[in-house]
Amino acid sequence: MIIVMVPGAKEADIKRVLARLEQRGYGHHVSAGVERTIIGAIGANEREKQQVAEQLMGLPGVERVVPILKPYKLVSRDHHPEGTVVTIGTARFGAGKVGVIAGPCTIESEKQLREAALAVKNAGAVVLRGGAFKPRSSPYDFQGLREEGVELLGAIGQEVELPTITEVMEPRQIEVVLQHVDALQIGARNMSNFDLLREAGATGRTIMLKRGYAATVEEWLKAAEYVATSGNLNILLCERGIRSFDSITRFTLDLGGMAAAKLETHLPIIVDPSHATGTHKLVSPMALAAVAGGADGLMIEVHPHPDQARCDGPQSLTPKRFASLMDQVRSLVQVMGETM
Amino acid sequence: MIIVMVPGAKEADIKRVLARLEQRGYGHHVSAGVERTIIGAIGANEREKQQVAEQLMGLPGVERVVPILKPYKLVSRDHHPEGTVVTIGTARFGAGKVGVIAGPCTIESEKQLREAALAVKNAGAVVLRGGAFKPRSSPYDFQGLREEGVELLGAIGQEVELPTITEVMEPRQIEVVLQHVDALQIGARNMSNFDLLREAGATGRTIMLKRGYAATVEEWLKAAEYVATSGNLNILLCERGIRSFDSITRFTLDLGGMAAAKLETHLPIIVDPSHATGTHKLVSPMALAAVAGGADGLMIEVHPHPDQARCDGPQSLTPKRFASLMDQVRSLVQVMGETM
Amino acid sequence: MIIVMVPGAKEADIKRVLARLEQRGYGHHVSAGVERTIIGAIGANEREKQQVAEQLMGLPGVERVVPILKPYKLVSRDHHPEGTVVTIGTARFGAGKVGVIAGPCTIESEKQLREAALAVKNAGAVVLRGGAFKPRSSPYDFQGLREEGVELLGAIGQEVELPTITEVMEPRQIEVVLQHVDALQIGARNMSNFDLLREAGATGRTIMLKRGYAATVEEWLKAAEYVATSGNLNILLCERGIRSFDSITRFTLDLGGMAAAKLETHLPIIVDPSHATGTHKLVSPMALAAVAGGADGLMIEVHPHPDQARCDGPQSLTPKRFASLMDQVRSLVQVMGETM
Amino acid sequence: MIIVMVPGAKEADIKRVLARLEQRGYGHHVSAGVERTIIGAIGANEREKQQVAEQLMGLPGVERVVPILKPYKLVSRDHHPEGTVVTIGTARFGAGKVGVIAGPCTIESEKQLREAALAVKNAGAVVLRGGAFKPRSSPYDFQGLREEGVELLGAIGQEVELPTITEVMEPRQIEVVLQHVDALQIGARNMSNFDLLREAGATGRTIMLKRGYAATVEEWLKAAEYVATSGNLNILLCERGIRSFDSITRFTLDLGGMAAAKLETHLPIIVDPSHATGTHKLVSPMALAAVAGGADGLMIEVHPHPDQARCDGPQSLTPKRFASLMDQVRSLVQVMGETM
Repeated sequence: MIIVMVPGAKEADIKRVLARLEQRGYGHHVSAGVERTIIGAIGANEREKQQVAEQLMGLPGVERVVPILKPYKLVSRDHHPEGTVVTIGTARFGAGKVGVIAGPCTIESEKQLREAALAVKNAGAVVLRGGAFKPRSSPYDFQGLREEGVELLGAIGQEVELPTITEVMEPRQIEVVLQHVDALQIGARNMSNFDLLREAGATGRTIMLKRGYAATVEEWLKAAEYVATSGNLNILLCERGIRSFDSITRFTLDLGGMAAAKLETHLPIIVDPSHATGTHKLVSPMALAAVAGGADGLMIEVHPHPDQARCDGPQSLTPKRFASLMDQVRSLVQVMGETM
Repeated sequence: MIIVMVPGAKEADIKRVLARLEQRGYGHHVSAGVERTIIGAIGANEREKQQVAEQLMGLPGVERVVPILKPYKLVSRDHHPEGTVVTIGTARFGAGKVGVIAGPCTIESEKQLREAALAVKNAGAVVLRGGAFKPRSSPYDFQGLREEGVELLGAIGQEVELPTITEVMEPRQIEVVLQHVDALQIGARNMSNFDLLREAGATGRTIMLKRGYAATVEEWLKAAEYVATSGNLNILLCERGIRSFDSITRFTLDLGGMAAAKLETHLPIIVDPSHATGTHKLVSPMALAAVAGGADGLMIEVHPHPDQARCDGPQSLTPKRFASLMDQVRSLVQVMGETM
Repeated sequence: MIIVMVPGAKEADIKRVLARLEQRGYGHHVSAGVERTIIGAIGANEREKQQVAEQLMGLPGVERVVPILKPYKLVSRDHHPEGTVVTIGTARFGAGKVGVIAGPCTIESEKQLREAALAVKNAGAVVLRGGAFKPRSSPYDFQGLREEGVELLGAIGQEVELPTITEVMEPRQIEVVLQHVDALQIGARNMSNFDLLREAGATGRTIMLKRGYAATVEEWLKAAEYVATSGNLNILLCERGIRSFDSITRFTLDLGGMAAAKLETHLPIIVDPSHATGTHKLVSPMALAAVAGGADGLMIEVHPHPDQARCDGPQSLTPKRFASLMDQVRSLVQVMGETM
Repeated sequence: MIIVMVPGAKEADIKRVLARLEQRGYGHHVSAGVERTIIGAIGANEREKQQVAEQLMGLPGVERVVPILKPYKLVSRDHHPEGTVVTIGTARFGAGKVGVIAGPCTIESEKQLREAALAVKNAGAVVLRGGAFKPRSSPYDFQGLREEGVELLGAIGQEVELPTITEVMEPRQIEVVLQHVDALQIGARNMSNFDLLREAGATGRTIMLKRGYAATVEEWLKAAEYVATSGNLNILLCERGIRSFDSITRFTLDLGGMAAAKLETHLPIIVDPSHATGTHKLVSPMALAAVAGGADGLMIEVHPHPDQARCDGPQSLTPKRFASLMDQVRSLVQVMGETM
């Protein structure tokens, strides 16, 4: 890290910083500029880096501390330059493979889920999704079928021969979900639920980690590092829109952030245009934009009858619209030199 | 709610909307303007409102659906015009009572906690805080003393005769915490962890609910409504800064949002300038601004030796600075016609 | 518009609102719900709508005023459902025509501009751009060649047979620019410089109106309406990134906002991935994403020697990279069923 | 500045950076860490710093360039540690002097302005404000009385013996405004209108520079530096709210940013709670919060009859409310150890 002293910092202040660095096992070199003295510090174990930086900022005469190393390691391209392929059952994402996950926002009934599952399977989706535990921001909204939904998802997935994924909202749900479902989704609201990240990671199953809607790309990758430190690198990242000042779309889909993240990490990244835009009219253009921008896959909400959905109907595609989108995605993937 | 049709909506589209409203038990009246037809809908139970609105948005010819009722009830001033007083042990917040919660960001040792506790007690704080379970955004950072920290907090609180509060990050921590500590804090990262809200609420203890750093005031009050629906209105709201495009402060302290929230809810609201600003230099000005702006209390981080803190040292006040701030707060509270 | 009264509003408050509406020439109808009374108001000329709404909000008992009509008209798809084609010289944008504007961020010398112009012409760009008056956020940065740059742009444009565009920063620059250059760019910082919008519009030339980086789509379209009210509908909109909390990219490219804007307006919209991302590594992926997402064109910065550029070098493509991007864009446009 | 090389940067890449630094007249020293090589660069004139940094970022093997010096100088506390007092006529702001500027958002008529002026004078305001040229975001809104308004403002200011201020939106307005009015306001939308900043600065009159609602504090101070480089340090900064994701208030008043800016600059900073909050209910709490947080003054909109205002009525205080606020401000200023 680099420690920038205030203009005219006292000799004693500089010495105090150097002493602290030595005490913590850091090497250092001082360079005295015309206006400011700058101290470079080298060394230290990963575990204490942030702590030492904060403590240095508390010392007199220190203007700021600039970190040099990135706050993530296992998920970084610096340590693993090639793209990683992540699988959910037979489905593959990354390194030129583009996969589409689809299904209803919320599992409402066996009939609804079966209709949706058949439709997405026929159109070419490779994983079936469906919400069982729903994080609804109002206590008066429908909260999902919970355990019953998980069982339905597993059963219908087997029936239509698609691997499955669903969201877990807290560690106690992991066990029941994994009895029936192939992969775990960590939702945007839980991206910083660190106990959940660790416990989900420890199962060894593929984890789809959505970006928090107020998380920087760096924070997202740090959350992925939490999962990775449990020894599990089967991590599929998912961009789903961030919060901005404009509410014309439900969230602001950050495809530039997705592309920037791909420069930083070897993990595959998919995009969820349904939650990002909040309206079916924008799902197809943003799905195509995502693939053209380099996404390794998509997650799309499909409902047999959107106008009767118990949750997020306005953003769900009908089976017909989804099939048409998949045709366009296939053409696009080919032009991009990738495969589905 | 009000349904706005697109310009030139067909008669059949309008009839379809009316039929759907009737089917769901809503009364309606149609008003045909020059450009658009507008439909007012009255009735319906709270539980289905959001669902019906979403379904209507999916019907052809509907431009948008404007909700009229607020999405929270129990916490609303509409239903309870007077301000509520919320207590933690002997401490009181709201309706003219300004309380200060203080202590270290993280409990590091018995010695550190005792020093901090004595300092804040002597300076006039009415509740002792200290973090035991820490949500750290990097897996390589110090994660807190966990259960051991909770026990220390309870013991030192009794020793210095201050009620205590600490953060719980998931439902399984609630039980052990409540054996030792008086009140539960739900952190900004968990504001939308709805299982946690419900289970914490169900204990009947006072819940301090921090605003998520990407949460609107409306979403914050909806989260409070989650706690309230468990039958527990001992809710202390805490504004701690939101995310904006400027990182000159760690977060952007939203005192306007705090004041706007006070117009909406009868619950008391305190302000945490330590996490919002991230630097001790701005804690005192923002603490005073908060009180002058109508906050019902403050939460301030105090560490006996900030430059040796294991977490958030740069934003911690020394005992001396805290005592000086408390003198200023007392003068200000008096001018405001309130008491501490 | 719809006026929502507070719960339990007094009869006198409701009557005051109705009287005010009548006085301003609005028809109205009252609907009294269980909790709130709602008043629908119809009529009024465009010029006073906002004023009346604000005045109503100031009356006792009024909770909020919900506008129904959109705040723009001439640029709205409601009034002109088909997409408009906008031209700059021989170049066409919109309704299935995708055009690419390219050239250096800043005109530095005749040699640099000629090299860039030949390169972009050969690769298939249809308009030459180059900055003459530069809005630099630091007074110590290079401010552009100003008048001399404008003349160079006109001359080199003729030489390579490309129509030209450059930014004007204030009304006094319009005259000199239009002696040499075909179209006027209004930059993001000036999107709300309403005198400039009016005077630029009054020239009748094509205006490229960039979205302000803190402007909602609605505000952007209102700015376009300013230009349109001068009688000029030759308006090319340009999305160039908005400000968000994450600075991993220079701005957050809002392709969802672009697509949402296309639902609202008949004007063509192009995308500038150079300013949005700030780094050449992300320009190509975001250019492709924009076209796949429905953009009617692109604006790309190209510099013969980016590492010697006097401004924005890091985001400029080399001629070689630009030619390679144009090949990809052509394939993509074909798949999309559009033409260049 | 500090140049951070990518991990495993080639020797040739490092040499190329050093050569470029030498060519531009920078001294340098290289420090090779375990993972990365870091190069410190010292020297260079202010004018080329940004350009050199950008060019270095374009060289192969460079990960990022970290600036060390601040991008402003004349307005920085580093170069002028004491607070500056800025005057408008007899009014003083800064270094312990708290001044209040008040008046109507928009000048509508002689009668309205005189009523407002008498009211604010009697309540203790020290400068009279009133808008003549109005930047309205819709072309259908009232645009102000323009020249006629400026004359009225000058005349009524003399009548009630208050110095005056009004906004200029482009350079051509400066001359007529300064014939009648004492000080110039640069509005939030024009904070980056650099020609306007320079020409306004060159008049030598006091410039009130509002923070752009999407401007970082650093960008705001860079804009002030533009004014300062014209040789004019009579600059009064004004925080008026920034754009955030929550629209419960019109803008998000950034008092933390104001306090952070005061650490950086010696210029006085006032706060405009009227535009920030958009509703008179929040003006008083935020005015008090601003003063308690260290603001050097306030700007408050006052209208004799807010419910008949042609612009921004909902956020205007009545004369009675304003007088009551001024009483509270006076008590608060006294407690803070300052004077009015």
